[in-house]
Amino acid sequence: MRIAILGTGTVGQTIGSKLAQLGHEVFMGSRDAANPKAVAWANKENLNKDSTQKHALFGTFANAAAFGEVIFNCTLGVASLAALRMAGAENLRGKILIDTANPLDYSTDSWALTVANEDSLGEQIQRAFPDSFVVKTLNTINCDVMVNPNKLSEGSDLFLSGNSAAAKARVASYMRDWFGWRSIIDLGDITTSRAVEMYIPLWRCFRKYVNSYDFNIKVVTI
Amino acid sequence: MRIAILGTGTVGQTIGSKLAQLGHEVFMGSRDAANPKAVAWANKENLNKDSTQKHALFGTFANAAAFGEVIFNCTLGVASLAALRMAGAENLRGKILIDTANPLDYSTDSWALTVANEDSLGEQIQRAFPDSFVVKTLNTINCDVMVNPNKLSEGSDLFLSGNSAAAKARVASYMRDWFGWRSIIDLGDITTSRAVEMYIPLWRCFRKYVNSYDFNIKVVTI
Repeated sequence: MRIAILGTGTVGQTIGSKLAQLGHEVFMGSRDAANPKAVAWANKENLNKDSTQKHALFGTFANAAAFGEVIFNCTLGVASLAALRMAGAENLRGKILIDTANPLDYSTDSWALTVANEDSLGEQIQRAFPDSFVVKTLNTINCDVMVNPNKLSEGSDLFLSGNSAAAKARVASYMRDWFGWRSIIDLGDITTSRAVEMYIPLWRCFRKYVNSYDFNIKVVTI
Repeated sequence: MRIAILGTGTVGQTIGSKLAQLGHEVFMGSRDAANPKAVAWANKENLNKDSTQKHALFGTFANAAAFGEVIFNCTLGVASLAALRMAGAENLRGKILIDTANPLDYSTDSWALTVANEDSLGEQIQRAFPDSFVVKTLNTINCDVMVNPNKLSEGSDLFLSGNSAAAKARVASYMRDWFGWRSIIDLGDITTSRAVEMYIPLWRCFRKYVNSYDFNIKVVTI
């Protein structure tokens, strides 16, 4: 598949590398056509390949979005709407947009959420791009666990939020096939993005308690 | 022990009944000296006893707080500060105040939090009663699971937030001895109340998904 990754940070690189290594064509987009992190990432992934065909590409947000059949938003939450506007509604139209971002203000010690409670980043993105199918997922775990959930000692849960049942079913199959997720919980429509974004303060407490990024939660029932 | 329960709702009744049945003297406080729900609860619990001594008592918030060595806040989050002011700082001074409440606005469909992100109900209570030892706990689970965590199919996690390590250690032992909690995670100081209160929207999603109140989360590590 042709997959766009918007964002050159650790999340984008980790997801991009996993997908390139699975044989997909992955296009990493950023504000600049030749962001040094994107260039270095693409060179590294292409070296990993036996084939002469380049599987890892880089360019602007718009280049990436135009290329991708599916788009991952891996930008910082506070920059996501601007990045997606640069990607262009016409390049995102009719496509699944997987939103992994959290609207955190890293300038504060408390990492306050910049939107919460009666709105969320997932909803803002869906409102701004009504012709795309936004599915919020993966934002509740560190990127190493995102692409390798089986590194944990037992199964844990991945969550999906989105308005389109068909898009969520497609994303669930991607998460299963690409990354190995087994327990995938459909939380409901895109308003449930609030819940997964507002979980991040508790995720931060767990990170300190566990003293590692390698963890997730599991819902335990009767 | 002499234990005060502030609030006559399902949470207060469930915790109060469990503690009375364990042989503690439990005083349920409310706005009125003879709230019908508190009277009915006390009558039921006292009938359950062989002894002629009444183990279940009722009265005002102030009566309850004056009686209790430990105080449970089981009032609605939006009413908690007013209830605790009626209980009286002098009756709460030097005591452990276990805050189980969530600041939810039930008048909205979305159950928006009335405080979140850069403050929390737990912090508001600690600021309003600086001479009490506020420990936030139990707010992340339904009351039937609070007092009987072993009804779930496997172990799950209970969280503590509070500024006093000694008070948290005491509350951890209460949770173990009274209710059977085994995995108790100290999240940190009272500012971590934000995290457990902001988890409630995700709890609500889980409740719909599980279609039951009998669930909790467990942190899974490597």
